Amino acid sequence: MGEFELIRRYFVRPVTAGDGVVLGIGDDCALLQPDPGMQLAVSTDMLVEGRHFLSTVNPRWLGHKALAVNLSDLAAMGAQPLGFTLALALPGTDEAWLAGFAQGLLELADAHHCPLVGGDTTRGPLNVSITVLGQVPPGQGLLRSGAQVGDDIYVSGCLGEARLALEALRGGVDLEAAALRRCRARLEQPQPRLALGVTLRGLASAAADTSDGLVSDLGHVMTASGVGAVLQWAALAGGGAVGADVRLQELDLTRTCVLAGGDDYELVFTAPTERREQVIAAADRVGVAVTRIGGVCERAPGEPPVQVLDASGHLLDGHWGGYDHFG
Amino acid sequence: MGEFELIRRYFVRPVTAGDGVVLGIGDDCALLQPDPGMQLAVSTDMLVEGRHFLSTVNPRWLGHKALAVNLSDLAAMGAQPLGFTLALALPGTDEAWLAGFAQGLLELADAHHCPLVGGDTTRGPLNVSITVLGQVPPGQGLLRSGAQVGDDIYVSGCLGEARLALEALRGGVDLEAAALRRCRARLEQPQPRLALGVTLRGLASAAADTSDGLVSDLGHVMTASGVGAVLQWAALAGGGAVGADVRLQELDLTRTCVLAGGDDYELVFTAPTERREQVIAAADRVGVAVTRIGGVCERAPGEPPVQVLDASGHLLDGHWGGYDHFG
Repeated sequence: MGEFELIRRYFVRPVTAGDGVVLGIGDDCALLQPDPGMQLAVSTDMLVEGRHFLSTVNPRWLGHKALAVNLSDLAAMGAQPLGFTLALALPGTDEAWLAGFAQGLLELADAHHCPLVGGDTTRGPLNVSITVLGQVPPGQGLLRSGAQVGDDIYVSGCLGEARLALEALRGGVDLEAAALRRCRARLEQPQPRLALGVTLRGLASAAADTSDGLVSDLGHVMTASGVGAVLQWAALAGGGAVGADVRLQELDLTRTCVLAGGDDYELVFTAPTERREQVIAAADRVGVAVTRIGGVCERAPGEPPVQVLDASGHLLDGHWGGYDHFG
Repeated sequence: MGEFELIRRYFVRPVTAGDGVVLGIGDDCALLQPDPGMQLAVSTDMLVEGRHFLSTVNPRWLGHKALAVNLSDLAAMGAQPLGFTLALALPGTDEAWLAGFAQGLLELADAHHCPLVGGDTTRGPLNVSITVLGQVPPGQGLLRSGAQVGDDIYVSGCLGEARLALEALRGGVDLEAAALRRCRARLEQPQPRLALGVTLRGLASAAADTSDGLVSDLGHVMTASGVGAVLQWAALAGGGAVGADVRLQELDLTRTCVLAGGDDYELVFTAPTERREQVIAAADRVGVAVTRIGGVCERAPGEPPVQVLDASGHLLDGHWGGYDHFG
């Protein structure tokens, strides 16, 4: 099977009229038609075997996750997907692997009306690089730099299950079969919060997705905004923000999973206090639970961007920073 | 040096107001503002060590070429650059290598007003994946599918020098130092024909860039258009379409370099015969020579998409198809 046949067999789907794709796979470029006047949101993520996934990964979930992590970036910007490109380096042509990968990738693409419009395939160590394109009305993108002192801080869904699955797969914790299945689905098949991102336009003052971990990702928002975050552990643990299976673990592990877990692909965002009811109503409309977990404050020199307090108001002690590929 | 410091030190440049970049590196997405109503052109290429370049490559020319091959796809669409993203897997952080790579990459980006707006860096086997974004007025993109029977066929610049350099570096042919230098510059620092692509809007009926080789790339245009090409070897060899150093080689090697060479990143395009003067004048205006090398004809079943005739009208015999990564 040659390169063009590989692309044709696994990745080319008919272009649907009216979805904004003027020209799909097969020319020098793809052509897309954004809605008039819209700004273009662009994000790129690269997944490398042995670093972001193991060679034993189910290819269907790899395909799903490779696109999901990119769509999650669009969600965190409040952008609506237009399409994506795929650059894929493969050590060989394993047809069963390709069929599974394409299925996971294109099912998620279909679910979010984000067609594959172009890309590149080559031989090489397994590498999946995806660039996703979306659109957002001018001035309505959810930047990291917009958080204001006094704003509330929210997180969508629940945190920690992806990390708990990872700990279980590494043998560091025992989970019952049903719990492992639930947590593993969160790790392997994250669901990007696109509808929530769009509905938060004009409500949230800043947003990011929790790809590296709550403290790390919220820290980037705080740094970009020149402010600090104070989170209430009780609000996290008491609300719906901690996964049910995570809540059953011993406290240290629970905090690691929730505060530093990463791979959850939920949205963490800030909004002015006077919009509390609107935020909850907006999240309700798209069927996603959000939990208010803290507030934005001034940040004194030398203070970390995110601090977590226990129920008695004492600072929790721990390192919940993100992962650094070159650290 | 951590991941964020690496990005900041080598890849982040101040965003220039008015260049269409609303938000650059550092948020969940970049935000670009295309001109109102424009279509968006997107292309992705992935370069893998050992496949597209050797580990000994000068990092500056690797940075240049990685972007050049993508810009060449925009040129072939007649699109004007908006910006690009870079996904980079690195085995480690070699600062001299990174400085050279970033220099070559960003110098070419500056020359074509195509800012780096986002991307991803990770550790892994060396892999450079670039996605370039451009804009083109609706209906004016230079598709591969527009060639008509009776159209002229043109190529820009001259062909074969990149392949001749490769043959010399492999030891298959001897070149004098000055000739090797000239040919090697064509191989390592290709110049994307962006101004030519834009000026051919409304003139060319179809276009592609010569990345794989003239016969292969023109073949894709012919297949997409449902027609065939007849090229005159004499027109290629007699016009300016064959590189000076290539013309000094023995005939078989010359034909291989010119017809199957690839890596030239010139434009091959078709245009109606009544636009001959306009095509030459348009190319003149942007300072690029173009040579008329043949014509478009009906394609009989079983015939190859591109045929090359010698001066006496006999079919040249040879295999000048393109490279297949999985063939």
